[in-house]
Amino acid sequence: ELLAEVIAFFQPKVLAGRRILITAGPTSEPIDPVRVITNRSSGKMGYALARAAREAGADVLLVSGPTALPAPYGVQRVNVETARDMHSAVMRSAADMDVFIAVAAVADWRVANSSQTKIKKQADGHAPSLQFEQNPDILAEVAAMPSGPWCVGFAAETEKLHEQAQAKRARKHVPLLVGNLAQQAMHADTTEIVLFSDEGADALPPLPKLDAAREIVRQIARRLPATATQRQH
Amino acid sequence: ELLAEVIAFFQPKVLAGRRILITAGPTSEPIDPVRVITNRSSGKMGYALARAAREAGADVLLVSGPTALPAPYGVQRVNVETARDMHSAVMRSAADMDVFIAVAAVADWRVANSSQTKIKKQADGHAPSLQFEQNPDILAEVAAMPSGPWCVGFAAETEKLHEQAQAKRARKHVPLLVGNLAQQAMHADTTEIVLFSDEGADALPPLPKLDAAREIVRQIARRLPATATQRQH
Repeated sequence: ELLAEVIAFFQPKVLAGRRILITAGPTSEPIDPVRVITNRSSGKMGYALARAAREAGADVLLVSGPTALPAPYGVQRVNVETARDMHSAVMRSAADMDVFIAVAAVADWRVANSSQTKIKKQADGHAPSLQFEQNPDILAEVAAMPSGPWCVGFAAETEKLHEQAQAKRARKHVPLLVGNLAQQAMHADTTEIVLFSDEGADALPPLPKLDAAREIVRQIARRLPATATQRQH
Repeated sequence: ELLAEVIAFFQPKVLAGRRILITAGPTSEPIDPVRVITNRSSGKMGYALARAAREAGADVLLVSGPTALPAPYGVQRVNVETARDMHSAVMRSAADMDVFIAVAAVADWRVANSSQTKIKKQADGHAPSLQFEQNPDILAEVAAMPSGPWCVGFAAETEKLHEQAQAKRARKHVPLLVGNLAQQAMHADTTEIVLFSDEGADALPPLPKLDAAREIVRQIARRLPATATQRQH
């Protein structure tokens, strides 16, 4: 932690005085008390961003789904499980934030008919039938807030990255969207990302996640409107 | 690791010369490249048993689903993801083992219509429909091997523990079944278990998982038929 503090001290304070909300990790949707539907997400990219934002002088609140990672030094963490938990935690503080970075791999669907007791395996091989309901779209909701934070989205796609990422950016009305190919980034320590904005697509070389996070922080700081700087807390 | 070795040195060598196969952790069944169905299991109980068995002098092979835990000192680990992967890894070595301890929370079902590409969220809120198929029953299959290892099962139930555990023991033909209430044990460092055998039900007090694991190892060693001791490897 001392070393982390020394490194943090020497990072340029491009986000000094800014309040940043970050979601990270997967969410976990219960099928029954022992089974869940979840996303393959280690949380590493979101945690790297939380660390990088804090190094850059920001006041960071991290809303995290289940991961095995320790909270980065100096970062306030709220642990959640389901997409609805994450939605509540985000909506409670989003209005007070300058920037919202939605990195978490939020489950798009939850199980509508989840069971309060463990579903037993049937001797005849019959499998349970699950009904799904769509979860709230946290990023789109925050991006639609009248005087909400400046929003950054993430898109992990398995194909047609540029097309899907630009479509997602337009649909959710976010100024900056970070795209990657899910096969490359999941659970890895390095990542290869593309930044999509009004300026077009900016492909970064493969980088350790913390270096990619620092670059994203620089890009956010450069694009952040001055008006947000002058907000009063 | 040095301390672990010192502690291990002073444990009674009740499993000296025995070969023990242990499964641990959850399995993970893909829905698509980014989404999975899994069980709430940290892997702690299985890893504690692997450590305790090794401390007791056994040669331990640990077949583990995805967890964040390091392999215990001196234990050989094989990492797997799906129930079918775990089944293959177990069947490859089960015939050579003296004892098989099935601790893993194996997914009972896999997704029959999993997708090779990420399933997109529909604008109309329509959710995907998943079909399930039953996975192989690893413990029952090993227990049915003509000259297979002595088998220990685990049952995490949310209700009617004694009834469900005794039924599972009879159905799968395992001499020893360890039952617990899933609500108490999941992700916790302590556990409250009941041992079910021909001798009846033996409820242990709440214990740290490593202490519970050492007690289970003693119980296995006491019950293990002498014939297995004399097996040639």
